[in-house]
Amino acid sequence: MKLLAERALLPNGWAERVLIETDASGCIVSVTPQAQREPGMESVRGFTVPGMPNVHSHAFQRAMAGSTELRLHTSDSFWTWRDTMYRFAAKIDPAQMQAIATHLYVEMLKAGFTSVAEFHYLHHDRGGKPYGDRAEMSHRLIASARAAGIAITHLPVLYAYGGFGSQPPTDGQRRFVNSADNFIALLESLDAQYRNSPHVRLGAAFHSLRAVDASMMRNVEDALARLDPTAPLHIHAAEQLNEVEECARWTGQRPVEWLLDNVGIDEHWCIVHATHLDDREVLRLAQSGAVAGLCPTTEANLGDGVFPAPAFLSASDRFGIGTDSHVVVSVFEELRMLEYGQRLMRHERAILASDDEPSPGRRIHVAASVGGARALGIHAGRIMPGCRADLVALDSDHRVFWNTELTKILDAWIFSGDSTCVRDVMVGGRWHIRDGRHALDADIGAACRSALTTLLLSL
Amino acid sequence: MKLLAERALLPNGWAERVLIETDASGCIVSVTPQAQREPGMESVRGFTVPGMPNVHSHAFQRAMAGSTELRLHTSDSFWTWRDTMYRFAAKIDPAQMQAIATHLYVEMLKAGFTSVAEFHYLHHDRGGKPYGDRAEMSHRLIASARAAGIAITHLPVLYAYGGFGSQPPTDGQRRFVNSADNFIALLESLDAQYRNSPHVRLGAAFHSLRAVDASMMRNVEDALARLDPTAPLHIHAAEQLNEVEECARWTGQRPVEWLLDNVGIDEHWCIVHATHLDDREVLRLAQSGAVAGLCPTTEANLGDGVFPAPAFLSASDRFGIGTDSHVVVSVFEELRMLEYGQRLMRHERAILASDDEPSPGRRIHVAASVGGARALGIHAGRIMPGCRADLVALDSDHRVFWNTELTKILDAWIFSGDSTCVRDVMVGGRWHIRDGRHALDADIGAACRSALTTLLLSL
Repeated sequence: MKLLAERALLPNGWAERVLIETDASGCIVSVTPQAQREPGMESVRGFTVPGMPNVHSHAFQRAMAGSTELRLHTSDSFWTWRDTMYRFAAKIDPAQMQAIATHLYVEMLKAGFTSVAEFHYLHHDRGGKPYGDRAEMSHRLIASARAAGIAITHLPVLYAYGGFGSQPPTDGQRRFVNSADNFIALLESLDAQYRNSPHVRLGAAFHSLRAVDASMMRNVEDALARLDPTAPLHIHAAEQLNEVEECARWTGQRPVEWLLDNVGIDEHWCIVHATHLDDREVLRLAQSGAVAGLCPTTEANLGDGVFPAPAFLSASDRFGIGTDSHVVVSVFEELRMLEYGQRLMRHERAILASDDEPSPGRRIHVAASVGGARALGIHAGRIMPGCRADLVALDSDHRVFWNTELTKILDAWIFSGDSTCVRDVMVGGRWHIRDGRHALDADIGAACRSALTTLLLSL
Repeated sequence: MKLLAERALLPNGWAERVLIETDASGCIVSVTPQAQREPGMESVRGFTVPGMPNVHSHAFQRAMAGSTELRLHTSDSFWTWRDTMYRFAAKIDPAQMQAIATHLYVEMLKAGFTSVAEFHYLHHDRGGKPYGDRAEMSHRLIASARAAGIAITHLPVLYAYGGFGSQPPTDGQRRFVNSADNFIALLESLDAQYRNSPHVRLGAAFHSLRAVDASMMRNVEDALARLDPTAPLHIHAAEQLNEVEECARWTGQRPVEWLLDNVGIDEHWCIVHATHLDDREVLRLAQSGAVAGLCPTTEANLGDGVFPAPAFLSASDRFGIGTDSHVVVSVFEELRMLEYGQRLMRHERAILASDDEPSPGRRIHVAASVGGARALGIHAGRIMPGCRADLVALDSDHRVFWNTELTKILDAWIFSGDSTCVRDVMVGGRWHIRDGRHALDADIGAACRSALTTLLLSL
């Protein structure tokens, strides 16, 4: 396939009339700026940027978006939100999961995400019993990604305990719980089924240090390495202050400190949130090669706090962005909130720009594209040979891009854009969004709406 | 005119099948829930909410939106941003102002704003000389509002000094500067021309305590009171920390403290930003009856800081929201950022909810509608007799509203909505936005784009 992009953001900057050739698998094989138009080339209008990997998704939580902003208690917090989330998690069935996730994944594509790491812990049936096929819910999520057309890194989550000190899981957690052995069997069966599936990648996750112990982590890591030594590993850590305090009470260490000392945190890892870090943890995490999985809109919505981005970025550009609870599904909103959280705390502007890159929007978009692909264990995130052809074309007719210099396009999108800036979206050489629409919008929308109706009635 | 709204947010809550009758001037004369459909009624689909007043606009700054996110210095701040803003302010001509403002005002309508307080200090020609008609730029802005269909509260701004201690204005401020006498003459001529114009309201503003002195303020207040004793008065105050420090150095008091002690701050006043307040200032400002003019997205973009909203709201619900620099033009983004700034600082959720109103979105939307109308000196902001028929209909088919209870509609819009949620917008009984479009979109867009092209070339 030969695409001729009017303007495209390449690793060394914006270029015009860029010929992008892809092979049958959807991988980019050559990129040629200033190309001549030839018959058989397909034109791509607007500003073409790398598709963004979404490093952190709990698809079912989209069902709650906008309906949890309620003070039900004298004060509301992450923990009261979690109670509401558990009510949804207790009821959703496989068909509802699939319908909700398929619609969500289409929304992600429309927002400029071309791949998603699904952090999946809702394994069992409503009673907490494994489905006939233990991987039932995994199959549903992977089917959702395929129907939408988004690439997926599927991360089954090990959740064994209800709290630090190997506390038993609560009733609200009954659908999440696996022994390490059962969990490894799940990974093996998924690997056998999806190993050669295009645009499906497998990895694993630990829910948090509350939910696993060190020996389990080692066993799972070893098992996963036997299946695929490059598979990604994710974990939630240091999202909430009282999680940090509890970890310190039980282990004598802060969560990220504990991970760095007790687990081989390296470039295969993504540490999700990592909001509350001391200076030494920031530096060590940056030096570990791991990706920080930031979810700025969820972290603002849940009142988690502000990631120490300037210190981290001065030592590593390995971070990605995730929509997590999906209170919004938007590339620009995540990146905007990442920068704005810093500005509100520090009373400066353009904080995440650097000496080499004066544009904060471009710096964080580029870093999150590359870091996100790393976190998902995929070759993507740049428009260059060897990367999958995951492309997002921004609408050059949109008001925010009028008279905007190429060097400022990403800033215009991120800081002044809205949900109508993304026009066309390609995953692995195939267009899934054209002019802001998906071919299956009507069916996918109707199925999701119907699933939400039955789900909400069941709560 | 008889409107039958499927669902409308009235002062005492959501109601269904609401008959809203208006008179020839566009004022609501009766509101009847549970009405029967009759011939001659016009149906309003979706969720109808009061149109939002925009308490603070510098229209010309929309020309810079998205293009100032650049680190041009070792660190960027409000003050380096102001240098860029002065470059735009130095060049814009009346025709460009009108084209840019008209487009901006259409964007405001599409975002759910139905009136705007234009804080206007760009009075003179590029050389700093008054135009043949001193009110030239004011006429352009009022003409823009009329062309778009938005109601305007026009606030000419007195700007006399370049800094505390009656420092002379800088060259970058040459277009802003008036003596108190010339300024009063400007107010008188505008009053003579627009006193009886529908949907045009006049008031006045002082740029900041940097830019005026106490005797000027008194003279202008007296002159304005002679023209119209209920006219609104606005001032920027306490936006930046070093403005607070400088004020304390020159006057011995913090800006809001000084205003409270030296000017009769009362319900005719809107204190714009008021970001940096000590506990006593918060309480006194709340008790003064003035409206706090909050501009959360601009305040985040400029790194101003976070308004002490919980303390203020516990004593007064008089605040409004403004899009100020127009880095974005969105009702939901302002309200979302207002709540999220609090969550990031305090590590809680639903912070701006109250004991009476558990929904933070609804509480702040209602307060900002009512407080905004107060700041603009207009009868609007509620769907009730005596208020202007300024209405916004949200699209009930939008994903964020599926299966959403009426009590959560505003939360869904504010926290999970996007720029496509607003469908129809009415000002003073006349629809200006239908299905997200303005009748003059093509012409207004082309004129704005052309104005931006020549403006940017002239920089």
